[in-house]
Amino acid sequence: MDIDLILKDGYTIPITSKPRKLTIAIDEGRIIDLGDKKTIKNKYSGKEIDASRKIVLPGLINTHSHIPMTLLRGLADDLPLKTWLEDYIWPAEANLEATDIYRGAMLGCMELIKNGITCFNDMYFHMEQVAEVVKETGLRANLSYGMVTKNKEGNEIEEELREGVSFAERYQGQADGKITTSLAPHSPSTCSKSFLEETREKARGRIQIHLSETEEEFEEIHSKHGMTPVQYLDEIGLLSPDLLAAHSVHLANKDLGLLHQNQVKVSHNPSSNMKLASGAAPVQDMIDYGLTVSLGTDGAASNNCLNIFREMKTAALLQKIKNGDPTSLKARDALKMATINGASSLGLEDEIGSIEEGKKADIILLNGNESTLNPRYDIVSNLVYSANGSEVTDVLVDGEIIMRENSLLTLDEREVLKRTEKSSKKIRSKVIE
Amino acid sequence: MDIDLILKDGYTIPITSKPRKLTIAIDEGRIIDLGDKKTIKNKYSGKEIDASRKIVLPGLINTHSHIPMTLLRGLADDLPLKTWLEDYIWPAEANLEATDIYRGAMLGCMELIKNGITCFNDMYFHMEQVAEVVKETGLRANLSYGMVTKNKEGNEIEEELREGVSFAERYQGQADGKITTSLAPHSPSTCSKSFLEETREKARGRIQIHLSETEEEFEEIHSKHGMTPVQYLDEIGLLSPDLLAAHSVHLANKDLGLLHQNQVKVSHNPSSNMKLASGAAPVQDMIDYGLTVSLGTDGAASNNCLNIFREMKTAALLQKIKNGDPTSLKARDALKMATINGASSLGLEDEIGSIEEGKKADIILLNGNESTLNPRYDIVSNLVYSANGSEVTDVLVDGEIIMRENSLLTLDEREVLKRTEKSSKKIRSKVIE
Ligand SMILES: [Zn+2]
Ligand SMILES: [Zn+2]
Repeated sequence: MDIDLILKDGYTIPITSKPRKLTIAIDEGRIIDLGDKKTIKNKYSGKEIDASRKIVLPGLINTHSHIPMTLLRGLADDLPLKTWLEDYIWPAEANLEATDIYRGAMLGCMELIKNGITCFNDMYFHMEQVAEVVKETGLRANLSYGMVTKNKEGNEIEEELREGVSFAERYQGQADGKITTSLAPHSPSTCSKSFLEETREKARGRIQIHLSETEEEFEEIHSKHGMTPVQYLDEIGLLSPDLLAAHSVHLANKDLGLLHQNQVKVSHNPSSNMKLASGAAPVQDMIDYGLTVSLGTDGAASNNCLNIFREMKTAALLQKIKNGDPTSLKARDALKMATINGASSLGLEDEIGSIEEGKKADIILLNGNESTLNPRYDIVSNLVYSANGSEVTDVLVDGEIIMRENSLLTLDEREVLKRTEKSSKKIRSKVIE
Repeated sequence: MDIDLILKDGYTIPITSKPRKLTIAIDEGRIIDLGDKKTIKNKYSGKEIDASRKIVLPGLINTHSHIPMTLLRGLADDLPLKTWLEDYIWPAEANLEATDIYRGAMLGCMELIKNGITCFNDMYFHMEQVAEVVKETGLRANLSYGMVTKNKEGNEIEEELREGVSFAERYQGQADGKITTSLAPHSPSTCSKSFLEETREKARGRIQIHLSETEEEFEEIHSKHGMTPVQYLDEIGLLSPDLLAAHSVHLANKDLGLLHQNQVKVSHNPSSNMKLASGAAPVQDMIDYGLTVSLGTDGAASNNCLNIFREMKTAALLQKIKNGDPTSLKARDALKMATINGASSLGLEDEIGSIEEGKKADIILLNGNESTLNPRYDIVSNLVYSANGSEVTDVLVDGEIIMRENSLLTLDEREVLKRTEKSSKKIRSKVIE
């Protein structure tokens, strides 16, 4: 049978089964078969990629980002939260036009691809620009317009919801289904209670929200409503299997039970939580509870890179030191967070997140000869604790090759940097100078 | 004047002065002049490297490692400390022969070079093998035989000191001065008091030691001697400007004063301290006290990579979350730790650690077009929070180019990996199977 692509003989970490040499048959964007080289080559013919010196993984999934903020990387660091937001991030954002959003998203997507991230979950504004970049680069994404009611009134508030709902409806299923959408009320402290209730009513699919990121947010909700942010969302009726809660750093004991009972998904963002000194989320406790926890980079203004390999290690190290226990958050769990749990968090567990027959061919290849991946006592340990993302050589999304032997096939790196510079010059002149 | 090399027009972060475009004149291993392109080109002629699209930094310095342990990377992770040491690390080390040490060190040095580390400070055994690797690769290193008296008796103990002193004397100044040496009593809990005293007597130069790495060590010394490990070393007379104390995680308040008063240098190893759940060293407090703190990776068994770019970020993030303060350990301080403070910690502050006239030409170039280094609001922030080491393209040590446009000039990567595999197979068969 003639098919689109045969990925030949790579040492494969399928996630849902054990690592082994596999040859993967890909057709019409999906993995249609996999097995030993001889069996697959007897059944299929087509273009071949020799993966015999590669490590093969499902594409990594970044479940919380604000991709256009890559344009603001390094604009302001090491500052008190208030100064950072009020003197830098907000003034910069006030100056971001559609073109800047496009350019920032393009720089960010370039970095995602290079680091083997094939799918990301994003919340920001001018999201039609981000959707455009997703289409051009060939990535997969769940996109949402971030809705805020704080400091807004009447019409403006209605407009937020209209914008959020309209974006979600228009873009759901675009790019051959590679784009999915959510509603994204920004957080319990930046959206009013009635707005959160309206959002719940309007939601036809997934919802994402920042939840209990900082001590201040926890205290604010607690003093206003007499309950934790998680309990507050429960009262509103927002907790559900379709909710993805980013951060979830500050949790009371019964919050874990509520999240679990409602099958809420959590996106853990360790670098951002550390950099902004927000705190250390109880990830090992969540896992022990049976919660689905995935990994996010957050925006580049608070990380400052978009690299899920690095988040895996940071997440594992943070849990170990938080719990005073070197057995906390093991490498295998970190790798699951970055793959299959990411898929579940976006409702895409039947489509992506592992290398299995029938799933979409979202696959990355790493150079097995990189020093960081040797010696090879335990490939999962090497991937989590030693790899830094630069080992990624090839990236497939939906069966399309978008990076081949380190060459980006869907964008022009020099051009992306040139345009980034134009927009960053504007931001510099408006915010710093 | 005809000179060895002109590094032309790179955007340079000299560390001891402010970032700017500079052209660097290099002769006989040293930076003999630097300034704008025109001035330098008028005064000198010689081989040129165009650095106009590069970021130029002094080579990074890794002040605590056990480089042969790169051979044990991924052998055992996520385990309780006792199981890790007793069932894996010690049995593996018991099986390491001179050839294995050479191979592990070579794999490690390959990784150091690729990540822009030009100088490292190492403590292990069969150190003549490490010295051989240092000579072959062209790196700079401070080397020492790690002396232990625990579970040893009479003659064996004397032999430890003889070995340590003999290695230090024989190798001091070798490789055209690129190799320096120290005495290295392993730690206050693995060396007897009389042995530490003898070490102090025999020392003609620098001493390095693991100090207050774990709570257990702190408690053990406290219950035996009624004082903290730092106070214990003070009583023995080991605290001095020539002492480099690795880790220094668990410190009582007056310990900081003692370390400062005696101008002891500290090597902070954030990834290792997190991975083994040892704790978070009070680095910002140390800096506020005026202590010289540098960065180390520790061995690959407890990190698992050898990457000072990643240690800079991890160090900064760890301080921020430890202190609940996003202004803790700023990017500029992290970069100093990785460069000039590393030099001071090895007594080499007049030779390396910054780009200045008269210093050794230990210099690295980074590809300024990597997405992680853009946009360019603040290059130091990009280097610390966003770069992952893969941006390094060229490495010079003592004026010699040992990596040029990502090609390693002093070793054969494939050969190194092949040999690594041989040794790792042996270890696997002895320890795991
Ligand atoms: Zn966010
Ligand atoms: Zn050590």
